[in-house]
Amino acid sequence: MERPRHQGMAKNTSMRWRLPLVCLLWETAMIVLFGVFVRFGAEADAHWEEEKREMNLTSDIENDFYFRYPSFQDVHVMIFVGFGFLMTFLKRYGFGAVGFNFLLAAFGIQWALLMQGWFHSFKDGKILIGVENLINADFCVGSVCIAFGAILGKTSPIQLLVMTLFQVTLFSVNEYILLNLLHVKDAGGSMTIHTFGAYFGLTVTRILYRPNLEQSKDKQGSVYHSDLFAMIGTLYLWMYWPSFNSAISDHGDAQHRSAINTYCSLAACVLTTMAFSSMLQKKGKLDMVHIQNATLAGGVAVGTSAEMMLTPYGSLIVGSISGIVSTVGYVYFTPFLESRLHIQDTCGIHNLHAMPGLIGGIVGAITAAAATEDVYGKEGFIKAFDFTGVYQTRTPSIQGGFQAAGIVVSLLMAFAGGAIVGGILKLPIWGDAAAENCFEDDVYWEVPEDEESDVYHMHNPDKPASP
Amino acid sequence: MERPRHQGMAKNTSMRWRLPLVCLLWETAMIVLFGVFVRFGAEADAHWEEEKREMNLTSDIENDFYFRYPSFQDVHVMIFVGFGFLMTFLKRYGFGAVGFNFLLAAFGIQWALLMQGWFHSFKDGKILIGVENLINADFCVGSVCIAFGAILGKTSPIQLLVMTLFQVTLFSVNEYILLNLLHVKDAGGSMTIHTFGAYFGLTVTRILYRPNLEQSKDKQGSVYHSDLFAMIGTLYLWMYWPSFNSAISDHGDAQHRSAINTYCSLAACVLTTMAFSSMLQKKGKLDMVHIQNATLAGGVAVGTSAEMMLTPYGSLIVGSISGIVSTVGYVYFTPFLESRLHIQDTCGIHNLHAMPGLIGGIVGAITAAAATEDVYGKEGFIKAFDFTGVYQTRTPSIQGGFQAAGIVVSLLMAFAGGAIVGGILKLPIWGDAAAENCFEDDVYWEVPEDEESDVYHMHNPDKPASP
Amino acid sequence: MERPRHQGMAKNTSMRWRLPLVCLLWETAMIVLFGVFVRFGAEADAHWEEEKREMNLTSDIENDFYFRYPSFQDVHVMIFVGFGFLMTFLKRYGFGAVGFNFLLAAFGIQWALLMQGWFHSFKDGKILIGVENLINADFCVGSVCIAFGAILGKTSPIQLLVMTLFQVTLFSVNEYILLNLLHVKDAGGSMTIHTFGAYFGLTVTRILYRPNLEQSKDKQGSVYHSDLFAMIGTLYLWMYWPSFNSAISDHGDAQHRSAINTYCSLAACVLTTMAFSSMLQKKGKLDMVHIQNATLAGGVAVGTSAEMMLTPYGSLIVGSISGIVSTVGYVYFTPFLESRLHIQDTCGIHNLHAMPGLIGGIVGAITAAAATEDVYGKEGFIKAFDFTGVYQTRTPSIQGGFQAAGIVVSLLMAFAGGAIVGGILKLPIWGDAAAENCFEDDVYWEVPEDEESDVYHMHNPDKPASP
Repeated sequence: MERPRHQGMAKNTSMRWRLPLVCLLWETAMIVLFGVFVRFGAEADAHWEEEKREMNLTSDIENDFYFRYPSFQDVHVMIFVGFGFLMTFLKRYGFGAVGFNFLLAAFGIQWALLMQGWFHSFKDGKILIGVENLINADFCVGSVCIAFGAILGKTSPIQLLVMTLFQVTLFSVNEYILLNLLHVKDAGGSMTIHTFGAYFGLTVTRILYRPNLEQSKDKQGSVYHSDLFAMIGTLYLWMYWPSFNSAISDHGDAQHRSAINTYCSLAACVLTTMAFSSMLQKKGKLDMVHIQNATLAGGVAVGTSAEMMLTPYGSLIVGSISGIVSTVGYVYFTPFLESRLHIQDTCGIHNLHAMPGLIGGIVGAITAAAATEDVYGKEGFIKAFDFTGVYQTRTPSIQGGFQAAGIVVSLLMAFAGGAIVGGILKLPIWGDAAAENCFEDDVYWEVPEDEESDVYHMHNPDKPASP
Repeated sequence: MERPRHQGMAKNTSMRWRLPLVCLLWETAMIVLFGVFVRFGAEADAHWEEEKREMNLTSDIENDFYFRYPSFQDVHVMIFVGFGFLMTFLKRYGFGAVGFNFLLAAFGIQWALLMQGWFHSFKDGKILIGVENLINADFCVGSVCIAFGAILGKTSPIQLLVMTLFQVTLFSVNEYILLNLLHVKDAGGSMTIHTFGAYFGLTVTRILYRPNLEQSKDKQGSVYHSDLFAMIGTLYLWMYWPSFNSAISDHGDAQHRSAINTYCSLAACVLTTMAFSSMLQKKGKLDMVHIQNATLAGGVAVGTSAEMMLTPYGSLIVGSISGIVSTVGYVYFTPFLESRLHIQDTCGIHNLHAMPGLIGGIVGAITAAAATEDVYGKEGFIKAFDFTGVYQTRTPSIQGGFQAAGIVVSLLMAFAGGAIVGGILKLPIWGDAAAENCFEDDVYWEVPEDEESDVYHMHNPDKPASP
Repeated sequence: MERPRHQGMAKNTSMRWRLPLVCLLWETAMIVLFGVFVRFGAEADAHWEEEKREMNLTSDIENDFYFRYPSFQDVHVMIFVGFGFLMTFLKRYGFGAVGFNFLLAAFGIQWALLMQGWFHSFKDGKILIGVENLINADFCVGSVCIAFGAILGKTSPIQLLVMTLFQVTLFSVNEYILLNLLHVKDAGGSMTIHTFGAYFGLTVTRILYRPNLEQSKDKQGSVYHSDLFAMIGTLYLWMYWPSFNSAISDHGDAQHRSAINTYCSLAACVLTTMAFSSMLQKKGKLDMVHIQNATLAGGVAVGTSAEMMLTPYGSLIVGSISGIVSTVGYVYFTPFLESRLHIQDTCGIHNLHAMPGLIGGIVGAITAAAATEDVYGKEGFIKAFDFTGVYQTRTPSIQGGFQAAGIVVSLLMAFAGGAIVGGILKLPIWGDAAAENCFEDDVYWEVPEDEESDVYHMHNPDKPASP
């Protein structure tokens, strides 16, 4: 029993052959490429006993697994439950939010293991992987989840998979330029993950602009329980962000410090978000959209600098500012972006990732430029910025300049990449829904029948649910 | 205000004396048996300082706690939140799903500590426990949670406790036969946990066959939000499965490798599940049942081989296949099992655990049989398969044969045990509900009154919601 | 569109200027105080390489980060998701439960870092922080979350922030008296966190007694899905409690032992809770309130003794008893407290934290008094109770006496502190809601409009929801 409004659907949204085809072809490609290229790194290989002797390690606890696996699992939760549930706030798009996030992330981590592997873990024709590669793959996919936030509810699963393929590729190139060519530090990914991911997604959604999107306006909001589901996503992102920013930092003090800085920044961010959420609303009531999103800006904004000697009070300052900027963004910038620039940003990633990401890049540049041997110690200074080899002579201020250049490169890659990928996604072959069916799970999912009856007669008949 | 259909209840489902009696008697038994038998192992005992000297350990970090505790906690979440919420998909059985899972698992882990302790950690008349025992107890209970999936909604809490008592016992015997007598490797439990647990549960549900179950057919489905609750369970199982398969592997490379293999297998499984879910549905829409369950088959299917040198691409292949088999199972096998074999499998554990468990056993046997000193290294080869002592002369192909024998033993134990326990559970003394009251929390739980009125006349305007 | 009943609101609950003012002022104060006082501890500072040499550590894995970070993250989840979601059981106060818990905890951890830092980590004019400080800050805030449970739904966010400020301060003083002056052991905080937090909260709610609270009685219950959300909180608290009780124990055996004892206690507690929940109800049905709360009493009740040689069977006994006491408390004591003593305890913290906390303190005193060198080993005995320096001559029975004194001090601090803070919160300037608007998110939150219409016209009576 189709609902009347579906009769008006001009577009063919059936995924029956397209989605299976894409999934199976790509998974086959993954198997072939993994077969040719991917092998276990030394710490995951059964030859580890010999490796241990060679590296003069006395204990299995020195395996990188024990330094990073707990953080990896926290990051893993952020990608799948954090991002997935954060986007369930829409009243009728919970399946799509969690399910498509699941799909694109599961594909993305495979492709990211390859792309990042070729750039960073390639040795004698093989990509050698360990737990750090898994974290990096999750990070890379994180940037796709961010971009997904901008186009949430408006794209078909195939479009998401196509976007993932391209975005992971571009992410890896951008990351290579930043980390290897510019020798930039960005352990928590303010630039590589957030700035790049957000502006990429915003560019894509600009190109996919839907002039008639107000036709599905009634479905763009939340209901009471969908807001609680979204809070599950928010809290897991918030709680585990210290793991995110410290996951791939150097062993020892750097991981320890990253976690502390991020913890402080996030705590401060909650208070300024609450303050501005209440202040900017006529009746002074708190808005769940801000609490769900802007409270996380503090994690984004210390992504680059958390492993540096930002200090706890520095973190509080950065967190406070980012909470304010993000909340103000939701109230003033998002409507502006939509009405003037035709950027329809479903989750407000401009406020949660783009602006805080830029702040993060800038704070990182400043913190790097301000570094001294006195603060870091002679050894710590060299270790923190990897001022070894050809970078032996780099000074903090030069490093700060390169950090700033990293922001610019990330922005350019995001705009250019987003424009190209947006163009590809605009092709009329991907099965996206008509404007009046956006933000509606029913298009791509079997929705439980009982629930249907809710939808039909919920909102008493005098006021039809959709125009 | 009782609902009319309850007046038709012929069966006495009151738990008032039976459930407290069973719980208190058994808890008392646990206290007595723990008092007689269970003590702290050396690494959890206050004599650890002396132990450390004896074992020539220089640091507290060498305590097994730091190798395994993070994985233990992940496994713990899988058992209680993972399995618990996975089963909340039913519209009116969320309390039973989460609550009874909680009850049986909390009892089961105590009994498992004893049973597994007698078999594996018994020394001088005492069971000496540490974090690995906790993980193994959780594993053992995992097999009960699996069986619970088959009979979900159709049994009383006492039946579940009785089943747990017997199943934990049989699990421990089967595990002892496999690990100690056959010297089989099965760190992630494809055979001991999944194959055994699933076929045990399927046999039990076959014996408890309810011919009139269609009377509660309207309650066997999900509603929109119950599907989202179930996704919490799914995602935690999916994300933490690498911890599950690596939790009790050898320190160092084996834990590391298990996590990577499982990560890869699960990622591939998501793509083939999505592909087949869409392909097998006339309109190409995705089915939440498949996404909630079949995406996990990849974790089951590498349970035996994850710690071996399966390689990442091998994992992708196994994950891909298991996703397909599991999804096809939901579409074709489950209806067949119900209509022809009278196996009513509420959660479809045949598709998620039984078939992928068999695949896992077989893949493990093949991977073991294909092992060479070249691939593993001389030391790694011996360490991976424990080819020491009386097993010094075992070859890979013989090991493969024993692995295969392990599958057969697990199946036989499951069928025989399930038949006996099913017979016991069929006795008319346990207070199970009539067919028309299955899948209904109201039978064993105080269900909030408001909710009742929500479902039937949700705030009908004649009766204002608040005074 | 305001609902009619709001027209009757006499009180001004607008937060528009008050909440932002308090949040921004306090965050500014935090920044200033952190700037003056807080620095990285040696293990998080970039000078760590030098520190390592000085301390003769050979590996980064010896950094305290790797001993405690996984436990820290578990505790973090307990505070924000555990307590936050546990309190979402109310049908119309989910935003307040999760959101205000988020707000007060985020502020509280900052103030706790300072307060506890001045008492315990102050060196040369600076507070030096590391991962253990983060755990302790979370612990301290845990006691505020407990108190929040008593006044849930009846206070404004500003009142909560004011209470947090004072309670964190008093907590730190009390903790200092217990740990430093009385030299008491309380790693899991039965006394410092639970006893103190609960009696503090109960005193506050007594002073804030609302005679007309029955006006919002219809909102004091749960609905079906709000009970499931609450189970997320319950399960995360339950699963991670072993991490809570072991997080700040000594490295090695003590952390290991704490986790095992807590695991055992909690498992037993589930069974006795289920037993008594069923037994004390006329029809023998289980009550979600008990399952959500009393199952956790086992964690509280071993908070002091978990790191001691309580033994697994001792833990089962303590867990069993606490489950019974807590469930009986919900059935008999809570109504008594409300009707006779005018203590309105929304979440029943008296049953979950106060009584089990007292049990925990007493069990700790007994376990300490019963300690022998035989059981602990010569070194283990000294290490477990820190019988060094001026405490070299302390005997177990004297230690037991001091432990008992710790309970009394905590109680006195709670009553006195609660009375003062309750008096402050009674001032008519904080914007709390009228009795008829208690337990209602709409007062302080933008509640989705659609939901409003759901509640009032969902399932229009012409078409029954189920066939």
